[in-house]
Amino acid sequence: MVTYVPGDTFDQALPTGFVELWGLPINVTSRSPYSIDQNVWGRSCETGHLEDIWEAPHDEVWGYSDDPAAGKPAEEVTISFTDGLPVAIDGRPRPALQIIAELNALAGAHGVGRLDMVEDRLVGIKSREIYEAPAAITLLAAHEELENVCLERDLARFKRMAGQRWTELVYDGLWFSPLRESLEAFMTQASKHVTGDVRVRLQGGQAVVTGRRSAAALYDFGLATYDTGDVFDQSLSKGFVELWGLPSKIAAARDRKVMSA
Amino acid sequence: MVTYVPGDTFDQALPTGFVELWGLPINVTSRSPYSIDQNVWGRSCETGHLEDIWEAPHDEVWGYSDDPAAGKPAEEVTISFTDGLPVAIDGRPRPALQIIAELNALAGAHGVGRLDMVEDRLVGIKSREIYEAPAAITLLAAHEELENVCLERDLARFKRMAGQRWTELVYDGLWFSPLRESLEAFMTQASKHVTGDVRVRLQGGQAVVTGRRSAAALYDFGLATYDTGDVFDQSLSKGFVELWGLPSKIAAARDRKVMSA
Amino acid sequence: MVTYVPGDTFDQALPTGFVELWGLPINVTSRSPYSIDQNVWGRSCETGHLEDIWEAPHDEVWGYSDDPAAGKPAEEVTISFTDGLPVAIDGRPRPALQIIAELNALAGAHGVGRLDMVEDRLVGIKSREIYEAPAAITLLAAHEELENVCLERDLARFKRMAGQRWTELVYDGLWFSPLRESLEAFMTQASKHVTGDVRVRLQGGQAVVTGRRSAAALYDFGLATYDTGDVFDQSLSKGFVELWGLPSKIAAARDRKVMSA
Amino acid sequence: MVTYVPGDTFDQALPTGFVELWGLPINVTSRSPYSIDQNVWGRSCETGHLEDIWEAPHDEVWGYSDDPAAGKPAEEVTISFTDGLPVAIDGRPRPALQIIAELNALAGAHGVGRLDMVEDRLVGIKSREIYEAPAAITLLAAHEELENVCLERDLARFKRMAGQRWTELVYDGLWFSPLRESLEAFMTQASKHVTGDVRVRLQGGQAVVTGRRSAAALYDFGLATYDTGDVFDQSLSKGFVELWGLPSKIAAARDRKVMSA
Repeated sequence: MVTYVPGDTFDQALPTGFVELWGLPINVTSRSPYSIDQNVWGRSCETGHLEDIWEAPHDEVWGYSDDPAAGKPAEEVTISFTDGLPVAIDGRPRPALQIIAELNALAGAHGVGRLDMVEDRLVGIKSREIYEAPAAITLLAAHEELENVCLERDLARFKRMAGQRWTELVYDGLWFSPLRESLEAFMTQASKHVTGDVRVRLQGGQAVVTGRRSAAALYDFGLATYDTGDVFDQSLSKGFVELWGLPSKIAAARDRKVMSA
Repeated sequence: MVTYVPGDTFDQALPTGFVELWGLPINVTSRSPYSIDQNVWGRSCETGHLEDIWEAPHDEVWGYSDDPAAGKPAEEVTISFTDGLPVAIDGRPRPALQIIAELNALAGAHGVGRLDMVEDRLVGIKSREIYEAPAAITLLAAHEELENVCLERDLARFKRMAGQRWTELVYDGLWFSPLRESLEAFMTQASKHVTGDVRVRLQGGQAVVTGRRSAAALYDFGLATYDTGDVFDQSLSKGFVELWGLPSKIAAARDRKVMSA
Repeated sequence: MVTYVPGDTFDQALPTGFVELWGLPINVTSRSPYSIDQNVWGRSCETGHLEDIWEAPHDEVWGYSDDPAAGKPAEEVTISFTDGLPVAIDGRPRPALQIIAELNALAGAHGVGRLDMVEDRLVGIKSREIYEAPAAITLLAAHEELENVCLERDLARFKRMAGQRWTELVYDGLWFSPLRESLEAFMTQASKHVTGDVRVRLQGGQAVVTGRRSAAALYDFGLATYDTGDVFDQSLSKGFVELWGLPSKIAAARDRKVMSA
Repeated sequence: MVTYVPGDTFDQALPTGFVELWGLPINVTSRSPYSIDQNVWGRSCETGHLEDIWEAPHDEVWGYSDDPAAGKPAEEVTISFTDGLPVAIDGRPRPALQIIAELNALAGAHGVGRLDMVEDRLVGIKSREIYEAPAAITLLAAHEELENVCLERDLARFKRMAGQRWTELVYDGLWFSPLRESLEAFMTQASKHVTGDVRVRLQGGQAVVTGRRSAAALYDFGLATYDTGDVFDQSLSKGFVELWGLPSKIAAARDRKVMSA
């Protein structure tokens, strides 16, 4: 449900009669001091007392999540991904949309997904917004950790930057830009083998990963352990470390030489 | 204090007698199953049962933080920054080192700063690590939000990428690389005017910003409000939005033309 | 043909008898002062007098190209691309390999494609190399300009950075890294519609684009002209320019305010 | 001198009487079909027959450079840099502005610095422009090669991307953005030790580096040579190469395992 706020830019853009024509569930009678947007992915709230950025959000601004400080006992949920996309919750296969809906309820009950931030609107000014996205925040935490397990290092590093660019584009209203399509081709390829299960503990506003498993993991017990059975050839380290640091070493010698000249 | 674990790579590198010579507070008698590194900025723990990445960390692995689920009442702390650096805590000017020490105690008592992740060691293998960094996580949350208020958008976006590169360099052991020095010259300039106060609420493992104020803010109530007193010239939006989307519009028209040819 | 130079790292790596077994056309009798690698894509030459980086390359180091200063009259060649790949030369459809071979002869005769540079070997040291790549340099010039015509701006900008990363990976010997595959998925999508003809003038060591045409061009005469028939709505510029510069304007006002405080 | 073209956007922006008031050397009587902008750094020309992007530029569009095909004998010039900035030409110390003026004449006489390209105007449309920048192109070639000699690899790679971002900002009219200032702080630090001489051969439209020398070079004859006197420890390579490729190797093994499962 969208709370209608006279003066909201978006609302002004609606053609007269549009809401009635489509039977949209918009509450046009309430006189909220806030401008609120919401859908299944999240809810944002701005204006009112929030415009004083030193003032903490009042309890009334929250609509998708319960108080994180309520002392609710922890719950655990396991999310399964195939090629980067969520496909099951606690072992039950579900469409992504339903996983989001279920996680909104489940994680929202623990106060997960609240954000309070000043951001840069496309038109060049800063604005303070309150967000609630219990499912999104839970999914992001789980997905990021599964990537830690399944993505090769250089790919993970570049993907972080490419993902930031994707986010900027979408925030800036350029969903239909050719760059988005090309970035998504990158993402689709990169997400192959991001397949496995992640267990998340929900409590006190936090979604914390406590376990991950994947048949496509790049984590290898034999290589990682310091224990008996270590198969990592420690003797290779000397040559690697020497050459890895060689450019910095040569530069430092140059700096000293130039400084003393 | 570092818990000495026979077989730890770092420990192997210590010359015989080094610990005794310098009187380092290293506990060489305990027989921990973990490899632990710690200093004022944080504490890491690996090996033992943590090598099974599906298993949640046992309570015994934590050393810098209390249980986030203990139900402790929230506390608030205000951190002040000048040109990007922390300079005071709750209005009391302190050196950065002392701020870190105080925040470790304060935020650690609320279980803030626990991380559990699989990461990429420089030598090319993945490893699961537990981190505790109560002060670091609290400072990062506060600092990021102050940047949201004080940094211009394009600068903030580039700085995010430059910061990621800095982190990669340092993690990869290249502290003495010339690139680090140049990135820090960027950071120093970018951090001018990142000056102000941030109020953080500590509770249940979370450090949540609830207020920010700055004489150097780019946030402007008059521009941001939708209320009476709005000084943002809404009439400018039409031209901006039309030209902002023009490249995507031309590309979409081209795609349709080519597809139908 | 590869000129065999005793001591060349690559040659050392060849198993004994490998050259004879496969009948590779390697000239093992010459005693060249240079270490030379060559294939259809290019030829590199190092060591000998080239190790003195202040000394110009002697004429004898060049093997794929004629003297650019020979005063040969200009020739023109038209290269056609489909989805970013070269598919025809002067209107004759040809496989990419044959286009490269033909361009090596054609552009090499004009001295196109010579490079003389100090570069960073993977192992951390600098080395001076002479390259000849007549076809590669001609194709890159033509392809870049066709991209200027067919790629949307934001896509072109990001592709430049992604292309740089691809180049680093390949130079660093990481052809089989997962990141290369994901970057190429990006490139494949981005290259859709990079289709058209580019006319290149070859003379005096230069490959200069003099014309480009494409049914998938984003260039639009009606929008670009200042002439009668201009369909670009100049009135939109005011709003765009005002908001485009707004973040810088707000930051400048802030800087003045803080400075004078 | 700027050739005044009625209808030029920039000219429209000049207040009435501005040209006369300041005595600007603008030729308002010529009726050129082109829109021309020029200053000491370069000259651009657009519109007229150039709007047909398949047509080669007519000879009349060029104003800063002679025909590269004129067959003029090669000339050499040595440019000296201190901390990245040009400080002398052929051993004569000169202010940067005078070096630019001298190089415009010297390199322009050899047809160096001509560009013909389709580019993306800020307002979202593509435009074909002819540029002439003899000094700029010569300085960039010399400076880039001196960086190859004096910049550490990781720094050089990041600087390339940072430089691209700087260029985008400036092209997009954001000279006064805070990001430009921070990027320049990076550049200033990175340019320390980019000090030395570069010899450039000018001929037939090309500015080709033929020699470089620097007391701050990172190039080291002893490390680079394959000859007697090689001080590079070849035995380090094995460990380096094994660990450098380890992430790709683990990923390839994973891919095969998952594929065959």
